[in-house]
Amino acid sequence: MSVITVIGSGQMGSSLSIPLLDNGHEVRLVGSPLDGEIIDGLRENNHHKTLMRDLPKTDKLKFYKIEELDKALPGTDLVVCGVSSFGVDWFGKEILPKIPKDIEILSVTKGMINEDDGNLTVYPDYWKREYDNDRDIYAIGGPCTARGLTDKEETFVAFCGVDVEKLKWIKSIFETPYYIINLTTDVVGLEAAVALKNGYALATAIGMGMAEKRDDGIKFINGISTLFQQSTKEMFELLEFMNCDLKNIMYAVGDLYVTVQAGRSRTVGLLLGKGLSIEEVKKELKGQTLEAIVIATRTADAVRKLSKKNILDEKDFPLLMHVDELLNKDAKLNVPWKDFEIIDDYKNK
Amino acid sequence: MSVITVIGSGQMGSSLSIPLLDNGHEVRLVGSPLDGEIIDGLRENNHHKTLMRDLPKTDKLKFYKIEELDKALPGTDLVVCGVSSFGVDWFGKEILPKIPKDIEILSVTKGMINEDDGNLTVYPDYWKREYDNDRDIYAIGGPCTARGLTDKEETFVAFCGVDVEKLKWIKSIFETPYYIINLTTDVVGLEAAVALKNGYALATAIGMGMAEKRDDGIKFINGISTLFQQSTKEMFELLEFMNCDLKNIMYAVGDLYVTVQAGRSRTVGLLLGKGLSIEEVKKELKGQTLEAIVIATRTADAVRKLSKKNILDEKDFPLLMHVDELLNKDAKLNVPWKDFEIIDDYKNK
Repeated sequence: MSVITVIGSGQMGSSLSIPLLDNGHEVRLVGSPLDGEIIDGLRENNHHKTLMRDLPKTDKLKFYKIEELDKALPGTDLVVCGVSSFGVDWFGKEILPKIPKDIEILSVTKGMINEDDGNLTVYPDYWKREYDNDRDIYAIGGPCTARGLTDKEETFVAFCGVDVEKLKWIKSIFETPYYIINLTTDVVGLEAAVALKNGYALATAIGMGMAEKRDDGIKFINGISTLFQQSTKEMFELLEFMNCDLKNIMYAVGDLYVTVQAGRSRTVGLLLGKGLSIEEVKKELKGQTLEAIVIATRTADAVRKLSKKNILDEKDFPLLMHVDELLNKDAKLNVPWKDFEIIDDYKNK
Repeated sequence: MSVITVIGSGQMGSSLSIPLLDNGHEVRLVGSPLDGEIIDGLRENNHHKTLMRDLPKTDKLKFYKIEELDKALPGTDLVVCGVSSFGVDWFGKEILPKIPKDIEILSVTKGMINEDDGNLTVYPDYWKREYDNDRDIYAIGGPCTARGLTDKEETFVAFCGVDVEKLKWIKSIFETPYYIINLTTDVVGLEAAVALKNGYALATAIGMGMAEKRDDGIKFINGISTLFQQSTKEMFELLEFMNCDLKNIMYAVGDLYVTVQAGRSRTVGLLLGKGLSIEEVKKELKGQTLEAIVIATRTADAVRKLSKKNILDEKDFPLLMHVDELLNKDAKLNVPWKDFEIIDDYKNK
């Protein structure tokens, strides 16, 4: 049995305690500076306030506030980084230096950094470059709602990292009959796939908002599927540009599917699709972290920069460009349906 | 303005009349031998019985029974084949010889033939080989519910064929602001993608049936996404095997998304997911054409044959294999979740 310290006690980080406890490990759940109330609630009666689930009452699950990190780390075999993308630099600056070099880290944070030159950097590479050049960080991607995992639904994710043997060891700690885990050494491929889908979930959910707004009884299934298909096409081309294993489109698509079912990324798109401006959307969702806005904006910024350098063509990403205009340029909703059309003379290339 | 003769007045063939009429073309809708009642209903009051919509009342839309085909064909610029996959040989044998060689044909029939050697043949290639060696047939693929198109929802499909210039001409006949059309010369890629998705829609809908059957309040979103993701993975590998433009995964995925929302393929999976045997499912859906069963069975047959020849490995298609066992080997529902796991050492290949 091992000791796993999870830093960040939001929904996703906390839900990972379920397969870990099922496997008999000790889990130390450490709240980030934003998670004080969650830890208070868990200490009171094991109820997780935002996850809206009771965590198991067992000696093997221990709760810590961030000031108690020094108590949580000794004896740890593996650290899980469960912060949101807004905590990436905090984790790199404040936490990474405190984790001994021989302890592996598995991150569940989804997102990418847009560089000045137009490139997109996934978080494991960003942490390595900015905060700890010697450290290879492992990561989780794939379709997983925290509540579904907590409820022990069958959940199919992938773990990525540079070393297959270490990946197998990390998998052995987490795997249960309901937690299905692929392994891949294509870190950029997996991390880019599951980061991109947040922005495209917002994009696809715009169609769901348009459907809800209609009062003519039309379900708009074709319209929503159009956005799902165009999202897949644009994500595929971005993975291609980033030299990824193209099979990783499976994670982008699987995660897109789960993300448009429920959650904040979906809600932002839904409200935009109903005709709200982004300011109105932010007002309605006040106080919530909106990762989809961050990743859509960053990806669009990268595409525009690369388009100026003739490396990509922003005309190939009409959906992303319109989403960016809605989010950042105060544009009115006007999905560029006809701009999706392409002629692909594959056989004569 | 052109004259378009649509052969097969089922839902999909009939819905195509909407963009055609919007573009001012004359549409001659010819019922197949199975469509007699539909044509009777349309002649009575323009109501389409199975589509459950009224078609426009205009001189430009004319209805014919199959015995009147000779009246419908003269002056036709383009023939649309709107039969189901059960009418493929009927169309090849009875209809193809009656269509003058200089008239192009656009097929909306989705499916593939499983060959004795394990290969899968898309219908345009099958018709060419079996019935008319000189004829290149064009085809439509992509996510489109017939009702959505009839309601003029934004609908995003692709037309495929060997000659880009002819594709552009066919597109010019159909395209409207709401009917969004890609063009591709990768006939096998598009046709395989949209055929495969029928079987995988059945597979994914199994999760939806499992969700409906539960009485513990669990939504099973992770479980359904697991099946959606695994479906994407298996379709991707089949497209790869068939030497397709891998970007065509967009159509497989878009069409998978639309197909799991509603319709017969979904219903078969849903009922299997609730625990019904395939015999019980067929009894419940008596009289309905179940294309998903055909394509899942044919694809599984191909994979098994190719696996015996060591060209593919059936272990890479655990979801398809289980669906085949449910459909054809009287197996009990037992989704092989853990068999989905793979180790992809991409970076060290």
